[in-house]
Amino acid sequence: MSGADSDIVVMKFGGTSVAGAEQIKRAAGRIVAAREAGNRVVAVLSARGKTTDELVEQAHEISERPVAREMDMLLSTGERISCALCAMAIHDMGHEAISLTGSQAGIVTDSTHTKARIIDVRADRIRAALEEDRIVLVAGFQGVSTESRDVTTLGRGGSDTTAVALAAALTASVCEIYTDVAGVYSADPRIVQGARKLPVVSFEEMLEMSASGAGVLQLRSVEYARNHGVRIHCRSSFEDGPGTLVVAEEETMEQPFVTAVTHSNSEARVTLHGVRDEPGVAGRIFGALADASVNVDVIIQNEPVGDDQLADLSFTVDRADLPVATEVIEKLGGASLEVRTDERIGKVSIVGAGMRSHPGVAAKVFQVLGENEINIEMISTSPIKISCVISADRVADAVNALHSAFDLGAEAVRPEEEAAR
Amino acid sequence: MSGADSDIVVMKFGGTSVAGAEQIKRAAGRIVAAREAGNRVVAVLSARGKTTDELVEQAHEISERPVAREMDMLLSTGERISCALCAMAIHDMGHEAISLTGSQAGIVTDSTHTKARIIDVRADRIRAALEEDRIVLVAGFQGVSTESRDVTTLGRGGSDTTAVALAAALTASVCEIYTDVAGVYSADPRIVQGARKLPVVSFEEMLEMSASGAGVLQLRSVEYARNHGVRIHCRSSFEDGPGTLVVAEEETMEQPFVTAVTHSNSEARVTLHGVRDEPGVAGRIFGALADASVNVDVIIQNEPVGDDQLADLSFTVDRADLPVATEVIEKLGGASLEVRTDERIGKVSIVGAGMRSHPGVAAKVFQVLGENEINIEMISTSPIKISCVISADRVADAVNALHSAFDLGAEAVRPEEEAAR
Repeated sequence: MSGADSDIVVMKFGGTSVAGAEQIKRAAGRIVAAREAGNRVVAVLSARGKTTDELVEQAHEISERPVAREMDMLLSTGERISCALCAMAIHDMGHEAISLTGSQAGIVTDSTHTKARIIDVRADRIRAALEEDRIVLVAGFQGVSTESRDVTTLGRGGSDTTAVALAAALTASVCEIYTDVAGVYSADPRIVQGARKLPVVSFEEMLEMSASGAGVLQLRSVEYARNHGVRIHCRSSFEDGPGTLVVAEEETMEQPFVTAVTHSNSEARVTLHGVRDEPGVAGRIFGALADASVNVDVIIQNEPVGDDQLADLSFTVDRADLPVATEVIEKLGGASLEVRTDERIGKVSIVGAGMRSHPGVAAKVFQVLGENEINIEMISTSPIKISCVISADRVADAVNALHSAFDLGAEAVRPEEEAAR
Repeated sequence: MSGADSDIVVMKFGGTSVAGAEQIKRAAGRIVAAREAGNRVVAVLSARGKTTDELVEQAHEISERPVAREMDMLLSTGERISCALCAMAIHDMGHEAISLTGSQAGIVTDSTHTKARIIDVRADRIRAALEEDRIVLVAGFQGVSTESRDVTTLGRGGSDTTAVALAAALTASVCEIYTDVAGVYSADPRIVQGARKLPVVSFEEMLEMSASGAGVLQLRSVEYARNHGVRIHCRSSFEDGPGTLVVAEEETMEQPFVTAVTHSNSEARVTLHGVRDEPGVAGRIFGALADASVNVDVIIQNEPVGDDQLADLSFTVDRADLPVATEVIEKLGGASLEVRTDERIGKVSIVGAGMRSHPGVAAKVFQVLGENEINIEMISTSPIKISCVISADRVADAVNALHSAFDLGAEAVRPEEEAAR
């Protein structure tokens, strides 16, 4: 991507950043400031504050299982309202602005209603408007299906993906994501007092962090950014100053062992006792879960014991998916399987690109948790991440102990931080 | 139009008919019943209850003079929400339904944002959906501009026009307009106890009634229906039984002298003293008012008196337009014109296609008002209407006196009423 010398900036404002009239005017002010600094600006907006929740509630007053196509028609209105209002505010500041629906902006998707995937971005209309010296506001989270020309939505957090996709298509110099937090932190600041705002993280680190509980950026948008080389800048809507840059690994210079501690309290564990240790069993189980759109996170299977070679199989899922997961398993296993569930689990993860070349990190994690008498119930690793499933009531202790043991609150860890200041 | 033998029915539901979940389900029930009776159904929905007002309020929190294009983007979301929710309800009743935006439904307009005019209806997508045995729900009040492909709106009450335009394009057998009143009455039932629901009125009568205060149908939709020969049926969302048919005059058979008494309390009078009685003066005044989009209703000019031939000119406008009207006049007239305004006026009108052939109606109106000591301040007539501007506090008396004098509450006035029962 040749974005570095482009004068196009994509700015994305989340729901809290456009919640009320004051917030919309503030967002409009930031957009106008970027324009007056010489950029051509495309801004992607989310629905206002609780708008999407209210629309979902209206749907559920009508129907227990609202049909997906109509859900998309309904929910897509929220972002359009934000964009129209913000365009009005920008006009009052003396600039030309035009709001576009996802369809008008050329966001073309597949037909998977409520969780459509972007398959093309036809940004001609945006380019034409930018040429006419207009600021372009795009309704996030939505597109139009290529086959049936229906309104589609990209799923929760989809506005991040809209912004990144537009930044890629327009070869923007940067995609700025404005939220109510100032950037990406070394740990959740609500839990760890000394948590530090990270000046730079790599796409790979951000992917692991998004997947393991950091809520700043939506996983899919980070994947899209990595695949298309879009530089992301996570910033605060309410404060000035730089936030966190999410960039390719080669741009982050030397990596520390560990970049951040993340955690999640929204998972649940399912344990199956008496699983036959035969080829194909695990495939059937996790295939059925995938068919039911249940994402499985950590999986462990004990060595089979006894004459009939029965094993125990445990896995974790998002707590919201637990009812569906147990239903699927019970249908599959009949009476022979004993299924237990545990909702009192949590997960703590250590993420850092430098882990690849420093094999001692896992040992240190286990040692720190052990010293704090925190029992590790399950473990899952990737080249740049170590996750431990622990008791839910010890998550805050674990995050603090690890943050402190790896010295993540320390200033001036990375050479490039100096440059960024 | 060959609509009589078409199996397509267009049904339109107003804001109160889709206000809450219960009302939407009730509308869905009516739509499904029409489908199950063997019709192919296109339903046009308005925004729910106070949605449009709430959106307007949100705009005014942002901007004193919201830019028109963005106002349309904003307001068009209300009808889309209604349609998506109603489609969900219909699905739950076991029928396939699809909601379409004005643009998707092929409502093509000019580019006059906030009061666009329909210039074409390209109903291919609706026809295709009907062929696939689907019920089609169309967001009322909106379209897409032919030049810039922007979302446009048709102005308040525009959903009636959407419904009539679709009925014309699809050669529907009837356009049913569902509201919270049971039809068109001989007078406002809130004012006249013996007001009678009219089984049939002609387009011409309905035009005069809509223009003189009857709120059931929007004027433009009646004009469109007359021009394209669309039969309208005004019905109640909340009661069964027939409402009022609005049809071509030849279908109404013999006409009574007078069909209805209408009234308006929303006008104001402007009087200009000292207007020079020269050619072109009135043209300048009313031209300037038209340029400012002020609709002038009744106009009278006194004979000029005195050496300098100065006249008095009075006219009435919608009370909401009074500030703009006085501003326009004062700019035009400079210091030489004395402008007076009166907001305490009302208007009472008598409408009936039979008046054309019965010249005594006007005399009777003046006599009845005189007997009731109601002073007539201005008079305006058409071949089938007589309007009198009177004091606002005598409007209810005047309506009752005229309704009674012309015996409008009587049953079985028309031969075709018998047939309609």
